[in-house]
Amino acid sequence: MGRSRLHDRGELALLEEIRRLVSACGPVAVGPGDDAAVVSRSPYPLLLTNDALVEGVHFRRHWLSPRELGRRAFHVAASDIAAMGGRARAVLLAIAAPSTWPVAELRGVVRGVHDAARRAGAALAGGNLASAREIVLTVSVLGDAPTRPELRSGARVGDDVWVTGTLGGAALGLRLLLGARSLSGGESARRLWRRPVARLQTGAALAAAGIPTAMMDVSDGLLIDAARLARASARRVLIEADRLPLAPCLRGIALGEARMLALGGGEDYELLFTAPPRKRARLERRRLGVRVTRIGTVAAGRGVAIVDAAGHPLALPRRAGHEHFRP
Amino acid sequence: MGRSRLHDRGELALLEEIRRLVSACGPVAVGPGDDAAVVSRSPYPLLLTNDALVEGVHFRRHWLSPRELGRRAFHVAASDIAAMGGRARAVLLAIAAPSTWPVAELRGVVRGVHDAARRAGAALAGGNLASAREIVLTVSVLGDAPTRPELRSGARVGDDVWVTGTLGGAALGLRLLLGARSLSGGESARRLWRRPVARLQTGAALAAAGIPTAMMDVSDGLLIDAARLARASARRVLIEADRLPLAPCLRGIALGEARMLALGGGEDYELLFTAPPRKRARLERRRLGVRVTRIGTVAAGRGVAIVDAAGHPLALPRRAGHEHFRP
Repeated sequence: MGRSRLHDRGELALLEEIRRLVSACGPVAVGPGDDAAVVSRSPYPLLLTNDALVEGVHFRRHWLSPRELGRRAFHVAASDIAAMGGRARAVLLAIAAPSTWPVAELRGVVRGVHDAARRAGAALAGGNLASAREIVLTVSVLGDAPTRPELRSGARVGDDVWVTGTLGGAALGLRLLLGARSLSGGESARRLWRRPVARLQTGAALAAAGIPTAMMDVSDGLLIDAARLARASARRVLIEADRLPLAPCLRGIALGEARMLALGGGEDYELLFTAPPRKRARLERRRLGVRVTRIGTVAAGRGVAIVDAAGHPLALPRRAGHEHFRP
Repeated sequence: MGRSRLHDRGELALLEEIRRLVSACGPVAVGPGDDAAVVSRSPYPLLLTNDALVEGVHFRRHWLSPRELGRRAFHVAASDIAAMGGRARAVLLAIAAPSTWPVAELRGVVRGVHDAARRAGAALAGGNLASAREIVLTVSVLGDAPTRPELRSGARVGDDVWVTGTLGGAALGLRLLLGARSLSGGESARRLWRRPVARLQTGAALAAAGIPTAMMDVSDGLLIDAARLARASARRVLIEADRLPLAPCLRGIALGEARMLALGGGEDYELLFTAPPRKRARLERRRLGVRVTRIGTVAAGRGVAIVDAAGHPLALPRRAGHEHFRP
């Protein structure tokens, strides 16, 4: 049983087993088992997003447990719903995997997605199962939008730039998993990579309070993502290096390297947002479920600059952030 | 240009190009380019489904053009919306592909999905791009449900069993593409495989008229899919072999083999539904956009049987339908 692989069972028996693992609940009236899932109507505009985790590209099997992989696949996709200030409602999971993959690992991945979705108030509504040479998990999330979805394009000159949580920890964790180095206390960095948390509650609270002028999540690295926000808003984003909220697990490495990881590492899945300075007091008072840090300002112009406390520009790291199809 | 490959451009430039190919339209207020797509609110319950096409498993690159591949990916996924009697509204496209894939082919696939979605009244709302060892296209479709979504579970004893269009043509096309044989007139069979059509209009018309008691699409083969309907409805489905609407391109092959393809071949993406006999006149009068054929009846019991005109059971083909992870 624990040793059986996908080709020992076949697709139909596996789908039947997944159906038993997944109970229709919450907004999902008809879950896995029919042609499509039926989700109850929503009084809000809808949000729709997806993300994929590819074996050998985004993860290796021995880096995390199947449950962690499933949980990670949900949070990585749902982070885009958080970035719009929305609430996750229903999730589709498409699994492509080699026929030699152990059934127990498939089960773990499904449970991981299912549990993470439920904790976020959403339901695993359906999905797809197919054979492929490597594992590819594609998670699509349907969400409810807030009254005014938070776009990347609303930043104004003079706005503060804020970020939730801490940065760089997941990037260090990934480097440690890749075996590039070892480090005392590295387990907490690896854990940050394995268990990202979509900031759904925080994003929704910020949107409900009408605080952000622009918002997005930090997935490919702060520099790349801040450049996207700057471009969508047709403004310039200045980030003060001294203000970056470095993850505590970065304490063991040199400051310059820690900043590189925070600026270019990616996979933090924190929220990056801009807000007028008059909102500072509200941001400090408000219960957001996570710390928020003011890291810079919005100026006229284009692009991103890293500056010191006096506002003088610092050199940017050469490779800043993750991009597919780049060797 | 025509020769450039994904690794010559990088993910960010490719995403930018895809954004230019895809215009936000119809129900999509914010399309590709922000964190998530924003889809206008719907007064109906929602339908959510996805499907994946994996290179080397579901298709080979030289079997069809990139545009046909994109179109096929949309219709295969949207067929599940048709099977519920719904309307497609918004589509997400996740592409995983090797970095050596030509950019022109990526562009063709995106255009194929985009055009097919628009023709169906839906919009390509967003997606994802990642590197992988083979091409994996995952299409998720958000749809509006009809007042009463058509499930697989409502068939009643005495109902007629109906199917739209013709069967077996796509299966013959697939065999010809696999090179198992050649055949005069094989091009029309290959075309049926390359260009399936989700029966969205027909499914919605049937649902609006309140005709089906149960409905689903025929994707894995009539026998497998009729068995699913029988199981979900806790009834027995009897199919009369003489009534099967064989695709015209099957005329060149022996009747027994043609029936095998119609029963077990799959990938027809026609609608299989049950309805009380008193609806026959309405079904014949109604303009459904495609022919419908009465192929059998629903009885008490379980499972599926193929019968002759006198109701005597015929032997079933040994391998009936497609199942992943089965060698």
